Amino acid sequence: MSKDKGYIVPSIPQGMQELLPKEQILFNKMMDTIKSTYELFGFIPVDTPVMEKAEVLLAKSGGDTEKQVYRFFKGDHELAMRFDLTVPLARFVAQHFGELTFPFRRYHIGKAYRGERPQKGRFREFYQCDIDIIGNGALSIINDAEIPSIIYTVFKALGFESFTIKMNNRKILNGLFAYLEIIDKVEVMRIIDKIDKVGIDVLKNMLNEAGVSEKAAETLLSIITFNGSSEEILQNLEKFDIENDVFQTGIREMQEVLKYINSFGVPKENYTVDLSIARGLDYYTGTVYETILNDYPSIGSVCSGGRYDNLAQNYTDKELPGVGISIGLSRLFYQLTAGKIISTDGPASTAQLMIIPMEDSREFALGTATKIRQSGINTEVYFSDGKINKKMSYANKLGIPFVIVIGENEKNTGRFSLKNMLSGEQTDADADEVISIIKGETNG
Amino acid sequence: MSKDKGYIVPSIPQGMQELLPKEQILFNKMMDTIKSTYELFGFIPVDTPVMEKAEVLLAKSGGDTEKQVYRFFKGDHELAMRFDLTVPLARFVAQHFGELTFPFRRYHIGKAYRGERPQKGRFREFYQCDIDIIGNGALSIINDAEIPSIIYTVFKALGFESFTIKMNNRKILNGLFAYLEIIDKVEVMRIIDKIDKVGIDVLKNMLNEAGVSEKAAETLLSIITFNGSSEEILQNLEKFDIENDVFQTGIREMQEVLKYINSFGVPKENYTVDLSIARGLDYYTGTVYETILNDYPSIGSVCSGGRYDNLAQNYTDKELPGVGISIGLSRLFYQLTAGKIISTDGPASTAQLMIIPMEDSREFALGTATKIRQSGINTEVYFSDGKINKKMSYANKLGIPFVIVIGENEKNTGRFSLKNMLSGEQTDADADEVISIIKGETNG
Repeated sequence: MSKDKGYIVPSIPQGMQELLPKEQILFNKMMDTIKSTYELFGFIPVDTPVMEKAEVLLAKSGGDTEKQVYRFFKGDHELAMRFDLTVPLARFVAQHFGELTFPFRRYHIGKAYRGERPQKGRFREFYQCDIDIIGNGALSIINDAEIPSIIYTVFKALGFESFTIKMNNRKILNGLFAYLEIIDKVEVMRIIDKIDKVGIDVLKNMLNEAGVSEKAAETLLSIITFNGSSEEILQNLEKFDIENDVFQTGIREMQEVLKYINSFGVPKENYTVDLSIARGLDYYTGTVYETILNDYPSIGSVCSGGRYDNLAQNYTDKELPGVGISIGLSRLFYQLTAGKIISTDGPASTAQLMIIPMEDSREFALGTATKIRQSGINTEVYFSDGKINKKMSYANKLGIPFVIVIGENEKNTGRFSLKNMLSGEQTDADADEVISIIKGETNG
Repeated sequence: MSKDKGYIVPSIPQGMQELLPKEQILFNKMMDTIKSTYELFGFIPVDTPVMEKAEVLLAKSGGDTEKQVYRFFKGDHELAMRFDLTVPLARFVAQHFGELTFPFRRYHIGKAYRGERPQKGRFREFYQCDIDIIGNGALSIINDAEIPSIIYTVFKALGFESFTIKMNNRKILNGLFAYLEIIDKVEVMRIIDKIDKVGIDVLKNMLNEAGVSEKAAETLLSIITFNGSSEEILQNLEKFDIENDVFQTGIREMQEVLKYINSFGVPKENYTVDLSIARGLDYYTGTVYETILNDYPSIGSVCSGGRYDNLAQNYTDKELPGVGISIGLSRLFYQLTAGKIISTDGPASTAQLMIIPMEDSREFALGTATKIRQSGINTEVYFSDGKINKKMSYANKLGIPFVIVIGENEKNTGRFSLKNMLSGEQTDADADEVISIIKGETNG
């Protein structure tokens, strides 16, 4: 091939994430952990096309999100890339309503697309890992209490020890706002969301500027900033004697969730009621969740969601209340690795064992590889020519933990010198012993 | 919500595949089997954005494929959805060349997009499950012999017994064509590909029409239609005494592959040399593969691929020879289910056990669920109100294999009546016994 050929510079579209093997293996491991935990709770997989008909996806139009949507014509049809997994779920449930069994517990791990301005940790293609429980007409509040136990199990399985699931109920805020005659609810929620970032005085000013009366702001802040256990926060709320049905319903729902959450086995140190949690999305109508890694609060919520009254009102007259959460895995992974919270210095290969066959023992080496694979151990055979050092260096670079060289001697005796690449230790072993050593090491 | 609201009909773009839970669970199981088999051979996962810069993806332009590409502008940038996983691999390897270790054994399971005319079993969004082994400058022919052993292991793991991996070498055909002075190679290959569909006489006519001389057609057909074992086919080839270096190299490579394939443990009945296999794609330069389910030949090849000299010549001057295969899983799944070759009458849930708690035993029931989950058994707790029949019917519809009802008595004794939903059998068991019964049943 001529050197003067004009090569096209290989690169990916701006703002997208692409991982190298070490990172990809780690990413997949996290995704597998999330997936198997979702299945542990009996959630059912759904996979929808990444693109939808534009008129279906954007049925409920408007907002910043719509501006970010990738949309285009293919022939006469306008298509749009999904920007989350919730709208496709609504479409899916409405479309296949008669073929589903309710409550419908679905999980969906897939990519979504937003043409956001490029910035660190925000990707234009990103993985979401969602679960939702959808009721047909009604859905017991106990599901709202199960959600934290799923979040708890996922983050424990991911290896996190110190995290807090923060919960609130939108009815508490909505009722309170109505009672305090606060009109611009969306703006006030946005202000409240800043409570961890700005001081009380700044917050008070912002509330006044948003048209909240001095007295209302005082009540609101004294409620939101109250410190105490989850139970005490609710007791404090009741003290204010706020006569508003929505507010009272919110408290009752929150109490129910707290009552059951202990039965679900979530330790007290891993959850709390936090009345400042509002969640921007206006389709939440009851319980809302955020999850904070206690040692890294600046990351923000790593798992969020909530309860909504009606999943699919644009597509069907069926009432479909639901509750769900989402883990933004691409963003989380970026933050965990960029912040060196997790190490990406693991293996760059799925192989647990590499076999290096000498020329005249190839057949025996391949037979040994097959036998070891049958035990479930990922085994690569190295075929390229070269000196033994080059071959060892290949295993080393990929972080393959065990290596066997098979030559005449190994073929004759059926015994191998199993090299642990990390410790340098060599163990004399037959094929069965090799299997049990590797299994002991990698699962232990 | 008002009934007279205009609902948008929930539907997906034409030509795309969307599965219901029963099918999706089966599909995912197949995908997991393929993935874990690829990892068993030490392949490394890669995941690239589904869209590429249009000028990068379509560097090598032309052909039918390009017409089918989904391409569009987002701002000033023209993007294109990938139409296979090979071009993204080429771009990936060229882009990250310095950060990869060669031979680079990568697998990629992901979606690709082609705006094909809608027809049965052809989808506009479809899963490909690819492996490729990429060498830096050179790649041993032994890799070509390893590929059939991977195909063999995958299809055995997928539950198929009777299938044939058909192999050829493009150099044999190319050398033969040169020797026989056949000019329109592409057209002649297309004709040869039809050998299973049309008779010899029709084929001869087609060859003549394509400008192949009577004598050349005769030689070509007597070579291609020769029946015998793989070794006999190669011996027959040598008899023709064809003086052409490319042809002779092709025979030698094929002989090497056959020599090693036995060491790789592929039984003789599962592979054959078939000189009529050409594979349409013009980037294959050596060994080519097709895989036929013997009982369903009309499905066509379920796993195909081959050897190529230069993966990424549009992006780099590095010589990157490789060999790889691809399973078109969406298409395969469609054919297997539509043809009732596999049954989709399995469970519609991932749950292996459903627990139905009575009101006053909820806490104990939830604790039991947590304990059972810790053993790795997917367990759903049913929370909705209703009669016991309705609850049982839910488990039945979803195909959840085991059910426990937990009431006062169970709470007091710690013993349960474990119902096998398929046999109707009820077994008295404590939590540990429940675990071992379910594990025995589902893994046994």
